[in-house]
Amino acid sequence: METSNSRTAPEQGREARHTTGAARLAYFVSDSTGITAETLGSALLANFPGWTFERHTIPFIDTTRAARELVGDMRAASRSRHAPIVFATVKSSEILRELEVSGAFVVDLLRGHLRELEVALGTTASEQLGQYHGVGDIERYFARMRAVEYAIEHDDGQSVRSLDSADVIIIAPSRCGKTPATMYLALQYGLLVANYPLTDDDFPGDGLPQVVASHAARCFGLTTTPLRLSQVRHERRPNSTYSSLAQCTLELRRSEDLYRRNRVPFLNSSTKSVEEMSAVIMQSMRLRT
Amino acid sequence: METSNSRTAPEQGREARHTTGAARLAYFVSDSTGITAETLGSALLANFPGWTFERHTIPFIDTTRAARELVGDMRAASRSRHAPIVFATVKSSEILRELEVSGAFVVDLLRGHLRELEVALGTTASEQLGQYHGVGDIERYFARMRAVEYAIEHDDGQSVRSLDSADVIIIAPSRCGKTPATMYLALQYGLLVANYPLTDDDFPGDGLPQVVASHAARCFGLTTTPLRLSQVRHERRPNSTYSSLAQCTLELRRSEDLYRRNRVPFLNSSTKSVEEMSAVIMQSMRLRT
Repeated sequence: METSNSRTAPEQGREARHTTGAARLAYFVSDSTGITAETLGSALLANFPGWTFERHTIPFIDTTRAARELVGDMRAASRSRHAPIVFATVKSSEILRELEVSGAFVVDLLRGHLRELEVALGTTASEQLGQYHGVGDIERYFARMRAVEYAIEHDDGQSVRSLDSADVIIIAPSRCGKTPATMYLALQYGLLVANYPLTDDDFPGDGLPQVVASHAARCFGLTTTPLRLSQVRHERRPNSTYSSLAQCTLELRRSEDLYRRNRVPFLNSSTKSVEEMSAVIMQSMRLRT
Repeated sequence: METSNSRTAPEQGREARHTTGAARLAYFVSDSTGITAETLGSALLANFPGWTFERHTIPFIDTTRAARELVGDMRAASRSRHAPIVFATVKSSEILRELEVSGAFVVDLLRGHLRELEVALGTTASEQLGQYHGVGDIERYFARMRAVEYAIEHDDGQSVRSLDSADVIIIAPSRCGKTPATMYLALQYGLLVANYPLTDDDFPGDGLPQVVASHAARCFGLTTTPLRLSQVRHERRPNSTYSSLAQCTLELRRSEDLYRRNRVPFLNSSTKSVEEMSAVIMQSMRLRT
């Protein structure tokens, strides 16, 4: 941010004081699910690390009556506090006005950008409520349902049936994050994702485990740091060989060797969220259309 | 949209012509995963239903070099077409400038809103890249991993172990959308969600199936339309009793009776996306904090 260059010490001091006070109220308000308002609103708030926010996601505010009720709740909650910040994805100008006259600080995430698009396209936006998350596309629904079922069936090497149809096969030692990444790719993108655990039995020679060897081009590996892996494994089996730093170090080193020898692309999951891992996997495997 | 009131017939005609031409290029460009840019950008484009867009999500544009390469690709792709529309969530003003000088129409989804927040909070935004999707919060990572594993273990009534710890138990006849909703709630919100299929065996009396009866307050039901259910079941077993309209009608009627008699809240999934179902379930069960 350019404006950050002008930040001064006193300003930082003022921020720090705020953290000890009451949290600032932040509402993510939507005429639909609230997912967009929550995601972008949270990303924006993350740029103010010195502050604490009390967050509320309020979906389905699609009538002025619902908006008025919400305004009543916000007023009650913000008594003797600063005005709430409202991140809004509502298309109706009447509903937006209800929010604005309440005294809240409204960040309108839609309408300004809709006007920009109207300029870019030389036309006006449709008046209907956005139906992006609507069922509309039954094919997409089927694809996601199939993908989630495929992911469940092929989780943790449970089934090697129909690996032929996998878009990607995630391989890694236990607890490196295979399952959440698998499920995320299935649910968000309808991809067919299998995953296969690398165990001590899988390191007799230099090749990939027999089950996945013929699908090498669709394999993607995960690794992490020994410390992180040990920490995660302790959650499951405290003070076991399985969770010992020595065992974790060994398994990760062998896995990374295996990936390199077989030209399997891989990433270190220790500093990545499920979303980031999924984005890297899709980019690396060219699964984005 | 207020501006839509001024829409005229000729304008609509102009839109219609566009649909027969080449699709307009739309890029979702991010210095992180691209999820926010893709979600909000798609929601915005949904307001222009007469148009077709060729969409590309480009994550991890976090250096000016990466931005320049992308601009090269965009130029090659847009030859003899209108300038691409770029939905950008990049914090660096240098990267943003690279995109803007390319001639693309850039919709900046972050910086304008960051300025608004700076006004609301009376301070400047941090210069670091937003780390909302960053791993930072290892507790959140554990919670999601646990929730996904719980969901897999408790999918389709497979296990009745530890139903005590479920935040919600989704009940419904086969193919009403239990599994995708379950997985979405687990993955996005770290909720412990079990699901249990209602079969013919579950309608001997008036009560809930024995397995879930003692957890009635945490049950949520799904229903759909007989036609939709029959369509979805045909996908799995074409021309079976299971997928017949008569059987689907019967199972749905019995399920809805069961929900009403036992005061189990329920929703009709036939016109809802997975995201919408999840938002309704969380709201109804007060699972949003």
